[in-house]
Amino acid sequence: MTDLVTFGETMLRLSPPQGTRLETTAEFDVRVGGAESNVAVAGASLGLDSVWLSKLPRSPLGRRVVSELRAHGVRTGVAWDDGDDARLGTYYLEHGGEPRGTNVIYDRADSAVTTVSTEELPLGVLDDATAFHTTGITPALSDAAAETTRAVLERASAAGATTSFDLNYRSKLWSHAEARETLTALFDHVDALFVAKRDAEAVLEREGEAVEVAHGLATDFGFETVVITRGDRGALALHGGEVFEQPVYEADTLDAIGTGDAFVGGFLAKRCAGGDVDAALEWGAATASLKRTISGDLAVVTPTEVERVVAEGEGGISR
Amino acid sequence: MTDLVTFGETMLRLSPPQGTRLETTAEFDVRVGGAESNVAVAGASLGLDSVWLSKLPRSPLGRRVVSELRAHGVRTGVAWDDGDDARLGTYYLEHGGEPRGTNVIYDRADSAVTTVSTEELPLGVLDDATAFHTTGITPALSDAAAETTRAVLERASAAGATTSFDLNYRSKLWSHAEARETLTALFDHVDALFVAKRDAEAVLEREGEAVEVAHGLATDFGFETVVITRGDRGALALHGGEVFEQPVYEADTLDAIGTGDAFVGGFLAKRCAGGDVDAALEWGAATASLKRTISGDLAVVTPTEVERVVAEGEGGISR
Amino acid sequence: MTDLVTFGETMLRLSPPQGTRLETTAEFDVRVGGAESNVAVAGASLGLDSVWLSKLPRSPLGRRVVSELRAHGVRTGVAWDDGDDARLGTYYLEHGGEPRGTNVIYDRADSAVTTVSTEELPLGVLDDATAFHTTGITPALSDAAAETTRAVLERASAAGATTSFDLNYRSKLWSHAEARETLTALFDHVDALFVAKRDAEAVLEREGEAVEVAHGLATDFGFETVVITRGDRGALALHGGEVFEQPVYEADTLDAIGTGDAFVGGFLAKRCAGGDVDAALEWGAATASLKRTISGDLAVVTPTEVERVVAEGEGGISR
Amino acid sequence: MTDLVTFGETMLRLSPPQGTRLETTAEFDVRVGGAESNVAVAGASLGLDSVWLSKLPRSPLGRRVVSELRAHGVRTGVAWDDGDDARLGTYYLEHGGEPRGTNVIYDRADSAVTTVSTEELPLGVLDDATAFHTTGITPALSDAAAETTRAVLERASAAGATTSFDLNYRSKLWSHAEARETLTALFDHVDALFVAKRDAEAVLEREGEAVEVAHGLATDFGFETVVITRGDRGALALHGGEVFEQPVYEADTLDAIGTGDAFVGGFLAKRCAGGDVDAALEWGAATASLKRTISGDLAVVTPTEVERVVAEGEGGISR
Amino acid sequence: MTDLVTFGETMLRLSPPQGTRLETTAEFDVRVGGAESNVAVAGASLGLDSVWLSKLPRSPLGRRVVSELRAHGVRTGVAWDDGDDARLGTYYLEHGGEPRGTNVIYDRADSAVTTVSTEELPLGVLDDATAFHTTGITPALSDAAAETTRAVLERASAAGATTSFDLNYRSKLWSHAEARETLTALFDHVDALFVAKRDAEAVLEREGEAVEVAHGLATDFGFETVVITRGDRGALALHGGEVFEQPVYEADTLDAIGTGDAFVGGFLAKRCAGGDVDAALEWGAATASLKRTISGDLAVVTPTEVERVVAEGEGGISR
Amino acid sequence: MTDLVTFGETMLRLSPPQGTRLETTAEFDVRVGGAESNVAVAGASLGLDSVWLSKLPRSPLGRRVVSELRAHGVRTGVAWDDGDDARLGTYYLEHGGEPRGTNVIYDRADSAVTTVSTEELPLGVLDDATAFHTTGITPALSDAAAETTRAVLERASAAGATTSFDLNYRSKLWSHAEARETLTALFDHVDALFVAKRDAEAVLEREGEAVEVAHGLATDFGFETVVITRGDRGALALHGGEVFEQPVYEADTLDAIGTGDAFVGGFLAKRCAGGDVDAALEWGAATASLKRTISGDLAVVTPTEVERVVAEGEGGISR
Repeated sequence: MTDLVTFGETMLRLSPPQGTRLETTAEFDVRVGGAESNVAVAGASLGLDSVWLSKLPRSPLGRRVVSELRAHGVRTGVAWDDGDDARLGTYYLEHGGEPRGTNVIYDRADSAVTTVSTEELPLGVLDDATAFHTTGITPALSDAAAETTRAVLERASAAGATTSFDLNYRSKLWSHAEARETLTALFDHVDALFVAKRDAEAVLEREGEAVEVAHGLATDFGFETVVITRGDRGALALHGGEVFEQPVYEADTLDAIGTGDAFVGGFLAKRCAGGDVDAALEWGAATASLKRTISGDLAVVTPTEVERVVAEGEGGISR
Repeated sequence: MTDLVTFGETMLRLSPPQGTRLETTAEFDVRVGGAESNVAVAGASLGLDSVWLSKLPRSPLGRRVVSELRAHGVRTGVAWDDGDDARLGTYYLEHGGEPRGTNVIYDRADSAVTTVSTEELPLGVLDDATAFHTTGITPALSDAAAETTRAVLERASAAGATTSFDLNYRSKLWSHAEARETLTALFDHVDALFVAKRDAEAVLEREGEAVEVAHGLATDFGFETVVITRGDRGALALHGGEVFEQPVYEADTLDAIGTGDAFVGGFLAKRCAGGDVDAALEWGAATASLKRTISGDLAVVTPTEVERVVAEGEGGISR
Repeated sequence: MTDLVTFGETMLRLSPPQGTRLETTAEFDVRVGGAESNVAVAGASLGLDSVWLSKLPRSPLGRRVVSELRAHGVRTGVAWDDGDDARLGTYYLEHGGEPRGTNVIYDRADSAVTTVSTEELPLGVLDDATAFHTTGITPALSDAAAETTRAVLERASAAGATTSFDLNYRSKLWSHAEARETLTALFDHVDALFVAKRDAEAVLEREGEAVEVAHGLATDFGFETVVITRGDRGALALHGGEVFEQPVYEADTLDAIGTGDAFVGGFLAKRCAGGDVDAALEWGAATASLKRTISGDLAVVTPTEVERVVAEGEGGISR
Repeated sequence: MTDLVTFGETMLRLSPPQGTRLETTAEFDVRVGGAESNVAVAGASLGLDSVWLSKLPRSPLGRRVVSELRAHGVRTGVAWDDGDDARLGTYYLEHGGEPRGTNVIYDRADSAVTTVSTEELPLGVLDDATAFHTTGITPALSDAAAETTRAVLERASAAGATTSFDLNYRSKLWSHAEARETLTALFDHVDALFVAKRDAEAVLEREGEAVEVAHGLATDFGFETVVITRGDRGALALHGGEVFEQPVYEADTLDAIGTGDAFVGGFLAKRCAGGDVDAALEWGAATASLKRTISGDLAVVTPTEVERVVAEGEGGISR
Repeated sequence: MTDLVTFGETMLRLSPPQGTRLETTAEFDVRVGGAESNVAVAGASLGLDSVWLSKLPRSPLGRRVVSELRAHGVRTGVAWDDGDDARLGTYYLEHGGEPRGTNVIYDRADSAVTTVSTEELPLGVLDDATAFHTTGITPALSDAAAETTRAVLERASAAGATTSFDLNYRSKLWSHAEARETLTALFDHVDALFVAKRDAEAVLEREGEAVEVAHGLATDFGFETVVITRGDRGALALHGGEVFEQPVYEADTLDAIGTGDAFVGGFLAKRCAGGDVDAALEWGAATASLKRTISGDLAVVTPTEVERVVAEGEGGISR
Repeated sequence: MTDLVTFGETMLRLSPPQGTRLETTAEFDVRVGGAESNVAVAGASLGLDSVWLSKLPRSPLGRRVVSELRAHGVRTGVAWDDGDDARLGTYYLEHGGEPRGTNVIYDRADSAVTTVSTEELPLGVLDDATAFHTTGITPALSDAAAETTRAVLERASAAGATTSFDLNYRSKLWSHAEARETLTALFDHVDALFVAKRDAEAVLEREGEAVEVAHGLATDFGFETVVITRGDRGALALHGGEVFEQPVYEADTLDAIGTGDAFVGGFLAKRCAGGDVDAALEWGAATASLKRTISGDLAVVTPTEVERVVAEGEGGISR
């Protein structure tokens, strides 16, 4: 029995030390990151049997990705690309603080996953999966990736898994209009939508308060659950006609990348364990706040820690 | 002439880089720490001739402890354990920030100091010591350590040293009731008690405002001085019937571990130098605030720095 | 279907930078190491579906072990010790070069695995395992560990796995006589014995040339295969009455720890894949030589690399 | 055509890791810094063709300085000192946070630049320079440096460059009275003066509000432009009888050293590009705020980043 | 007056710490490397006014390349690619030691330089250049790069520069036959050819001793100078009908990458300074041996060091 | 009772990582080193109660020196220089390997010790010292240092200590003739001379075999002991008319700096412990060979390690 299956691209993440610029750095911290594997890691850390599906070059760099995901307890279902030119997507991340901001440079064109097809993925794992999750990044990568996303969603749905989808618009990959057209065509097979308020506005052309947006989306696309995230103002969920609000837990932010994925991972972990939507929102927010204290995309946290944040909101010193 | 003698366990302190979890770290920062040697280092940094007494395995790890304490000017009076199984206590420290908090994992069972006896310690150093200090951690380690603590306190007191004791309750070592029974039996030989407000409540079962607690303890156990610490709300001392209040100096906290020991070290440094209790409280608070800006348990500070904090409360740039 | 199951203790491995002494180091490189998990990692790197069985404290340090083994593709079957005092064995490693030598300090007494019992291990994995491997370190840890080793060997043997055993005498754990008595009592359930020539002499009291020792051991204990290792002089195997010799492949040695385990892992990988004993010896020797170029206990190598060493004996630059 | 020429001393900058004290550090971060080369680097980063003039020992350490300045696009006009005793100035920098503060220890006595003469500098570069800049640190180094500063200012002025001067009083180099006497004698050849409010008070003996000070200095010394900086309260410029005010942009400060030089560099970059004084103040303030997020003395920023801060005041995440 | 102009691709070079594998590394050392810029850096280090021509993405990564080359004194003539998808070539380098070998993984497809054209390069710099150098890597990158290589060689030749060409066959970029066809078509405009003996055999189909190969190539293609390199067996030059032999200088090799480029840079430095071919061979061999002791592709050496190696062959301790 | 007192300058030692040049390094390893404190540390490591006398600036850098020496068990008798310009000598060390060699750059002019006088040193420690040691570096630093060296030697000798002197010629400090004149004038108060064969030739103008040189020096200056060191060819001692030869122990050399001082420290440790000259030579050679495996100037070794090298010549792995 598998709890959670995700599908998407994972890249090498290269970042200079704090205070050092990409222009002049002499070293990179090396991690891996990708929205869907970030969710799988958060899920696995919180007790789910998680599987991540993707395509990677058959090279030490491809194995680098698998190694880090496995370390966090995720099982990997990888189509290995034997091509001479098969490449791993890379992203460069410079944390700047204000007013410099955080700079992300993608070098992901023509990565192995852009040629992924359903035939080469071990989709049998979906047959007894509780949940399937992917994001709006994957279909933006290539036509093949978009088509495979559609097919995998369909199969997951057919197999009885609860499917969730994080819209995750990336302006460096496509336009609002392209995203809208491609993504809305996938919504038929999606049970739960996660979407940032600003993406709902810009991509899905939804205006008004979060609660109205949620109702509108649920109505128009038949989602069972809609979760709207609003940065510092917390999240809102619409489920079974009921609305749930969840504020953020304050955090000393060391690395904000992956916070949204940690939220989704925490939410799904609670849902897969049978929790209600309001408890899932608490888990999502707590996992996200813990993530902010950890370097890298990944939420390496325990259920105990999440529960303590939910109960107390802080850590202290234990000795 | 020796100014300050302390007695207790010092452990290897292993901590991953900021933002990295123990689960996945590839490196540890290596330091040493222990309440009593922390006090000795703060004292030595501030000009005291300080001696630390303990028992260590005769191994590179035991020498690691001595090396670091000596670097900070502390003389060491060590009983070397030649046993094959002699081990050094270790503690793992993960700084998390909020809401993750700070996690301390002790691996100190059966460390060399748990078999310490008065015979193997160079107690002659007490004969001309101005002050002796130990804490409530040492008697919690083993029956032998408790018995030796009692004997050393007795000898220090008989030799004319001013004895001080920091209650320092450690829930991972014993219960409130065990601590209360063992520690109060030692108070006969203690001139000055340092105790956190919450430990006074939980361990010594004292309720009410800090000033009442101080009066009660002074009355019940005959302490010459009682210092109550209250975290952000500062410290309060009762001495010769007079009450002194001391707020904390604000600090950019990089590492809070050892703050309390720095407070005691600063306090004792001023007292040993003939300062009044109110000046000693200022030194304690200033040393503690400086400690918070320094990685590791140890308050590596100068009298000039402490005096500047007392006078100005901040640092600035000098050039 | 599982290819290889191993059982034994894995410790945290802490080592200072090259040229720095334990007495004075300010940082440790953090890895994990243990003979049986080293073998499992080598096997997994070379394509085996490997499982490692053991007992660990339920703590970030216990998870540190699992994380690193999983990263290398090993599945873990862990009995988690929830005790407050449950501890992870640790070893400190200082690489010295000549004439300083390599210094290993163990701090493994009372580690979680010393209380391991068959009930708490997921032994079902043995039911369809091709091979089972353990070493003479495990029974040296405690009576419980010795008893469990015996029981697991018995069960593996009964389930039809080929069982192998690396004698691996550790002088810091027990005497030659104690080792001899305990280990020989296990040999009934062992199909293949790996033993260093010097251990065969000192522990098993075998004299003479390696080939004689091999014949003697095979005769006396009924081993199907005996592999004698002789450091720089290579290895010798006796199998089915036939003797095979294997020289070492030269290597630029960066870290010699784990070389023997890499040899066993390479040997078993080839055997599990259906290779002959002479080909297995080549794989063992090649894996061992590659390991020497890699920091840490673990042989992170590929079948392609092993085959290239077997074919050419060296690397060069490929671009 | 050269945009900006600066003249002054650049030192090796050695700083321990955050949280570590100079007393005990085992490593230094190695950079170079000096007010005039800091300005040149900020200018070059923002698009100016910048040249830095100085004298250095002909040694790897002298080349270390040139290497880092060149990396940031500054051309160097160096008089190489072949003397056996020629030395590079060094400064040790310990970042403390509050209340420890930042400690700077100079070791710059008798550095190569203290013997600099006009004959050995490639002053031809001034002939087509738009701007020339130096500071009140250079003439404090030695009589020769003071005399050369005067001569270079004179030549730059005669060649038609706009000359600017940052008073930059250093109490470790000379007294207020010495500085006043030497610096005011240079003002004849200065078109634009940058001065901190507190230096205007202490060195130039000017009292009153910043605007009065600016008017007084402009009147007494005939400056075309006077810029008064007031720390957190922002800057004020008097130019052509008009007064311009500029608040600071908030920043997450990682390293405050070099902030003032970044301000000057940003200001001059905009002025050399033909910008008005108010736009130049914005560029100065934005460059200074970006600098605070970067380790080291140098403002490695782009015009795009400066413009975004001017427009929005913050960074965010772009992806 | 420019001494040396080179043209080609420079990549980001990412390598894990010694003993760590790409599969598992948590950090990369970050450098830049490319045959033609390596030659320019060696030349600049040895006193040449060197210029490197290429095309880079207008991004922090593109600036990273320029920053490092400038640091070593090379002037850069860069066509900046403003395209959204403009990318910098990357190469991953794992130093293994024997028998693991050195592993290079290129990720350079579609890098900015593959679209380079003569129009966007500042070729005016060739007009007063003493020497021009490029390699057989550049034309292998794309048709555009091959065509531009031809045009730049032609222009350099027409402007009177001595042109040199290092054959540098890369099997990961093209076949022997493709290389032969493209490269021999360029030889018309080449005065001096550098070629490894094995490339002369495989690509140019030349058999026999090095001296015969050199004569054959000089005759067939009209080269003024032919330099054949033979790894450990040293180099041989044919110039003006005369043959010169040069053995290698022994070195403690820390990083062999870039050794061949250092040889060419040392050779050209001596030739541009008016040295004879035999002296140039000595400089080439000495520069190459010094390079082997330095991490990274670049030969950061001084003329004094090269001369000392030529004179004495070794270093010693000077103090 | 003090075993060994030494007197001389100790400097900050700054070195870039292996393979990195001073020209471009971004970090320094920070240690302290000086011939006389190196000897004191070797002595203390081997069990002597050692004291080092010198003068240091009263600054964090001065305390850095004291901190490291204390860490290794040396007591320090320091005259603190309160002058604003008081500076600590510094030396930059680049390890190159062959043929690059090791490069040492001193920046020690006008360091605090150059003004040292006997009045400010705590010379009372000499009154019960077994041995006193200094080197030919100290008198080369300044006239004051030379005069103080003479006076301290005289006092040590008068107090009954055995005095030893390592000639240690430094060409960067003075000429052969200057050294000869100053040093020979000190020999009246020296019991044991250590001198490298090449210094005996160049400075003391002694020709012939080592044994002749030793006899000549003993005769001419009345030394009780003469030890001649000859690099790889080992050492020779003349004592009481008897000649002793000692070969070197082979070592994997990581850092050769301080080898000679380790030799002296090992020699003196054995002599102070009552050992014969031949045993002292063994200890000297063994300590020197162990030092070569350790980064930094200091021989952090144990008597057990030295004895094992003397007995076996190598290390191996112990576990």
